Amino acid sequence: MTWPRSHLLGVLLAEESVEALVVLAGSSRDPDLAPFVGGARLGQACVVAHGGGVWLVYFTSMEREEAARAEAGGVELVHPADFGMETLRRDGKTHEEILAAAVQTALDRAGVVPGRVALAGRPAAGIAVATARTLEEGGWKPVSGRGLMLALRRTKTTAEVEGVASAAQATVDAFRSVAEALAESAVRERGELWLDEERVTVARVKALAAQVFAAHGLEQPESSIVGPAEEGATGHSTGTLERVLRVGESIVVDLFPRGRLFADCTRTFCVGEPPEGLARAHGLVLEALETSLKAVRPGVRGWTLHERVCRLFENEGFAVPDKNPGTQRGYFHLLGHGVGYELHELPSFRKTGPGTDEFVAGDVVTIEPGLYDPDAGWGVRLEDLVVVTEDGMTNLTPLPYDLDPRSW
Amino acid sequence: MTWPRSHLLGVLLAEESVEALVVLAGSSRDPDLAPFVGGARLGQACVVAHGGGVWLVYFTSMEREEAARAEAGGVELVHPADFGMETLRRDGKTHEEILAAAVQTALDRAGVVPGRVALAGRPAAGIAVATARTLEEGGWKPVSGRGLMLALRRTKTTAEVEGVASAAQATVDAFRSVAEALAESAVRERGELWLDEERVTVARVKALAAQVFAAHGLEQPESSIVGPAEEGATGHSTGTLERVLRVGESIVVDLFPRGRLFADCTRTFCVGEPPEGLARAHGLVLEALETSLKAVRPGVRGWTLHERVCRLFENEGFAVPDKNPGTQRGYFHLLGHGVGYELHELPSFRKTGPGTDEFVAGDVVTIEPGLYDPDAGWGVRLEDLVVVTEDGMTNLTPLPYDLDPRSW
Repeated sequence: MTWPRSHLLGVLLAEESVEALVVLAGSSRDPDLAPFVGGARLGQACVVAHGGGVWLVYFTSMEREEAARAEAGGVELVHPADFGMETLRRDGKTHEEILAAAVQTALDRAGVVPGRVALAGRPAAGIAVATARTLEEGGWKPVSGRGLMLALRRTKTTAEVEGVASAAQATVDAFRSVAEALAESAVRERGELWLDEERVTVARVKALAAQVFAAHGLEQPESSIVGPAEEGATGHSTGTLERVLRVGESIVVDLFPRGRLFADCTRTFCVGEPPEGLARAHGLVLEALETSLKAVRPGVRGWTLHERVCRLFENEGFAVPDKNPGTQRGYFHLLGHGVGYELHELPSFRKTGPGTDEFVAGDVVTIEPGLYDPDAGWGVRLEDLVVVTEDGMTNLTPLPYDLDPRSW
Repeated sequence: MTWPRSHLLGVLLAEESVEALVVLAGSSRDPDLAPFVGGARLGQACVVAHGGGVWLVYFTSMEREEAARAEAGGVELVHPADFGMETLRRDGKTHEEILAAAVQTALDRAGVVPGRVALAGRPAAGIAVATARTLEEGGWKPVSGRGLMLALRRTKTTAEVEGVASAAQATVDAFRSVAEALAESAVRERGELWLDEERVTVARVKALAAQVFAAHGLEQPESSIVGPAEEGATGHSTGTLERVLRVGESIVVDLFPRGRLFADCTRTFCVGEPPEGLARAHGLVLEALETSLKAVRPGVRGWTLHERVCRLFENEGFAVPDKNPGTQRGYFHLLGHGVGYELHELPSFRKTGPGTDEFVAGDVVTIEPGLYDPDAGWGVRLEDLVVVTEDGMTNLTPLPYDLDPRSW
C-alpha cells in the first residue's frame, strides 16, 4: 500500500511550491510524526515525504519491529545501518551531525531535487537550526512546514477518526464513573461530600478519571480540569487537589486524554439544589450547545456558530468575548476547536487566520459554550466532541448534560 | 531576587562564546522553558537569557498572573503589549512573524549585542528556522543550544530536587498500592490472579498507579510499564492491557510520572513461588543495585558502575551489552540515566559523549540493573532514583525489593 495521504500531501506541497516535507521528531508522540507511523512507538525519528511517497528514518535497531509496523502503513524505511548510525556514533559525531546524515540519506532515497523544503516536527530548536543549515549547504531552502502540516493533519484517515472515537469512548466511561461517585456521595457537615468514609476532593475525582484512562491505555499529557465553584468560575484553574467538593456548587469537569489521538469533553455537575444563577446559566449553555450542534455541517464556519452563541448569551445579559474582549465573567472563550494529534488544532473557530474556513466532512471539533460568574462563585461549561459528516455531525461523547449526577 | 542559575549560565555561554540563550517553547511543559518559569503554567512563551538576567516573553494577557509567578522567581517579564501582540495579530501577521517580533523585543531588553546566540526549546521546527532567519538578518548567528541547555538543567536548584523528590514520594505510594493489591490477590484456575471478583490485568495495575498519581496532581506523559512474564522479558513492551497476571510469573512495574519534574522507579513482583531462574536473577540484580548504590558519589562515572554490573552478570554466565552488543537476553541496557524535566537527561551513563563525565553532588540519577530471559519468559529489573550528595547519595525511592508482594 502507499501512505494514505500522499495525494493530499502532493497537492499541499505544490500549492506552496515546496519539493518535500521534512519532519524531525524526538518520538512518535510528536504530533507531526504520528500521522506517518500508524501507531508504531518510536523514539527519535525523521520523515521525508512528498506526493510520491514517505521515507521514515529510525535510529536504533531495537526499534526494528516497531518500524516494521509503520512500514505496513505504506512508508519506506531508512534503517540505522543505511546512514551508518553506529559508525557515526563511534566516530563521536554530534547528535546534530548524525541527524543531518539521516535526513540527507532520506532526501536521496526520496529523490528530492534542490529547492524549497518544508520543515516540521518538534525537535530541539538547535537540531532544527543545524538541520536547516545542512539543507542550505546542500542547495535546499528550508521553510516553515507548520501550516502545511496542520492542513495535512486536519484531514483524518478512517483509522485516525477511530482513534479519536476510541479515546472519546474512554472519556464517556470516565464521566460515567465520576457521575456515579458524585451520585453516591453523602452530604455531611459544612455541605461537604463524602464517599466511603472519605471526603470527595478534586484529587479524588481526578483519580477516578485517571484510573479509567489508564485502564484503557490512554495518557493524560495535559492532566485534567476539576473546577469546583470559584475554581470552575475562572478560565485557568485546573483545580486545587485538596479542595473538598460541596453540595450546591458547580463542578466543572473537563477531560482530554490521548490515545493515538486526543479526545475532549466537559460536563458540569452540581450535587443537590443548584443556586438560581447556576441553574439558569446551565439551561442557557445547554441551549447554546444544542443549537450549535444542530448547526454543525460542511460549509459552516466555527466563527459563525461562536457569534450566534455570543448573541444568545448577550441577549440574556451576559458579557461576551466579541463585544467585551478581556472579560473575566460571562462568556470569555471561543466556542470550539479542532482536535487530533494535538488537543487544539484545525479547524480554528477564530474570526481570521489559518484554518478558519468552513467545516468539511471529516473535521473533528469540540463545541463548548460556557458561562462563568467568579463573584457568585460558579462556572458551567458543556463540551461535546463531534465528527463533521456530509449532512451534519456524529457526536462522539453522548452523555447526559444534567447538573445532577443522580439524573445520569 | 535574580534567577538562581544566572552565574552558571554566564559561564556556560562564555565557554561556547555565545552572547545569549534563546528558548522558544509551545508551553511551560517544554523542558527547556520549565527551569525559567518556576512552576508557572504558560502556553506559548520564549526566553532570552544571559549571565546578567532572564527575560521571559508571554503571549496572552490571560496568563498575566501565571507570568507574575515566574517574575517572582527572578525573571523580567516582556508582556504581550510590549511587542504589540494584539496589533500584530490584527494585522494578520503569521505565527512566525509574531514570534520574531517577540524575540527581537526580548533581545533588545536584554541588550544582546550581535554575535552567536544559542537556540533551545522545542518549538515547531518551522518556527525555529524562521526565528533563526530573523536572527541572522539582525546580525546574530544562531547555533544549537541543546548541549548548553542540558548542562544548565543538570545543575538543579533546591526547589527542583524537591520537585523530583515529591514525584518520587508519589511513586513510592503508587508502588505500595500495587504491592497491596497483588498481596491481596487470590490465585484461581490457570493460576490467574483475582481481586474483588475480577481478574487482575495489566490494565488494572496501570489504573491503580494512575489513580495515585492523579490524586497527587502528577501526569504520566509517557504512560507506564507493567510487563508480566514474556512481556517483561523484552526491552520494549509496555504491557498488553488485557493480559491477566498469573501466579509464579515475573511482573516488571516501571513508573515514571511527572510533577514539575519526573521521577522514575522500577520493581519486579512475583506472586507465589518464583521459578528458579527468576529467583536467582532477582538476587543478582539486587546485588548489582545495592553494590552500585553504595558506589554512587561525586567523582564516579556512570559508565564505571555500568561496567562493574556487566562483569558481575557476565561472571554468572549472562550475556552483557558491552561484550554482546545487541543481545536480547541477559542484560541489555545501560545501568542508569539522569532525571529532571525530561525522563532521560544528563548525566549520561554512556561510555563517551556529552555529560558522561563524573557525577557531581546534586545530580539526580537512576540505577537500574536488570536481567531478562525471553525464552524462559521472565524479566527482572530494580530501579532506584537517587540524588548524589557530597559523600554518597540519598535514595528517593526507599521501597522493599522483594519479589513477593506479601513481604512488602
